[in-house]
Amino acid sequence: MFFPCETIILRTAAPIEIIDVTETVRTAVQNSGIVQGQVTLFSPHTTAFVCLNEKEQMLQRDMLDFLHRLVPADTDFRHNRNPIDGRLNAHSHLLGLLMTASQTIPVADGRLLLGGWQSIFFIELDGPRDERQLLMQISGEQ
Amino acid sequence: MFFPCETIILRTAAPIEIIDVTETVRTAVQNSGIVQGQVTLFSPHTTAFVCLNEKEQMLQRDMLDFLHRLVPADTDFRHNRNPIDGRLNAHSHLLGLLMTASQTIPVADGRLLLGGWQSIFFIELDGPRDERQLLMQISGEQ
Amino acid sequence: MFFPCETIILRTAAPIEIIDVTETVRTAVQNSGIVQGQVTLFSPHTTAFVCLNEKEQMLQRDMLDFLHRLVPADTDFRHNRNPIDGRLNAHSHLLGLLMTASQTIPVADGRLLLGGWQSIFFIELDGPRDERQLLMQISGEQ
Repeated sequence: MFFPCETIILRTAAPIEIIDVTETVRTAVQNSGIVQGQVTLFSPHTTAFVCLNEKEQMLQRDMLDFLHRLVPADTDFRHNRNPIDGRLNAHSHLLGLLMTASQTIPVADGRLLLGGWQSIFFIELDGPRDERQLLMQISGEQ
Repeated sequence: MFFPCETIILRTAAPIEIIDVTETVRTAVQNSGIVQGQVTLFSPHTTAFVCLNEKEQMLQRDMLDFLHRLVPADTDFRHNRNPIDGRLNAHSHLLGLLMTASQTIPVADGRLLLGGWQSIFFIELDGPRDERQLLMQISGEQ
Repeated sequence: MFFPCETIILRTAAPIEIIDVTETVRTAVQNSGIVQGQVTLFSPHTTAFVCLNEKEQMLQRDMLDFLHRLVPADTDFRHNRNPIDGRLNAHSHLLGLLMTASQTIPVADGRLLLGGWQSIFFIELDGPRDERQLLMQISGEQ
């Protein structure tokens, strides 16, 4: 069965930011009562995506540097000449070509099967934003 | 329940091309009658992938430039020395390491839960091609 | 229905390595008896991911070169200054930001719908490792 899709509301504070949502997802899975199934995380944005990676403070800073340098924001992109939404965010969209909006994680015996080092990250690429959403859809058998 | 997998047939016209399939997917979801569930898009190719991003004409050109420059086609790759399928497409496969063949999008109340700026793109990395396929699998409850 | 999640155990032998698991997945799908459904592959690691691409010997070497060069291991990353797990693997985590931990492949008429050139790869980015896992979850209708 498919549970109703839930929305995690997030506020972001920096141009590029990595937000850990692991505990929110883990709690939702436990509350759902599903024994066997999966969770799909889905970002409904075009400049924010979903990654699974390690949460470590120094690594977080390496990640921010890496993403800032991979596609520098101050490049002369066509999308930024007449921004329809007032944001100079071509670099955010281009980074997004190399990321994914959806991740699916298995659930067994009522437990999210994340590895020991894995955290679920919402990756903001065009912040800050007052409100971002991350959709979470649980499916499986109770 | 799982609906039979549908195949979207596409023709591509350029070496790298971004094709919007959003309306095809949206219509299929509506016709399926599912209320709650999800759609999985799957590219059965090794040089074409699936992305979700914004459709804007200037941004499309930035995306093409970005992908062409990220892995230049004219690099001396081993795969291109004796091409088994007659195509010099190592760069397409390498770009593909940074993309994904599958994306899963939630459906609620019979509606595809895409964000307002999101389009579903089939990304051709080794065109032109007379026939490409994109598989679409709807699952959920009617 | 969701089948119990299966674990594929892998040993890796090089810092970056591409391991083909296609036949293992294909066999599991056939043995499951599902007619219509899908398979989700999930890497529970933060320095190993899942890709679909072509298996060709020269291309494999291009891929290894490409990944080694895209994020050089010998860069001065913060994560490597006091490695909590004794591994200098910041570059592996950063490459992982551009990859995905999960891929979902449709199944129809009991057959995995991979394209003719597609193989399922487990991508080791921080080997060698005595034991890596790849989770495989089959869902669908028998």
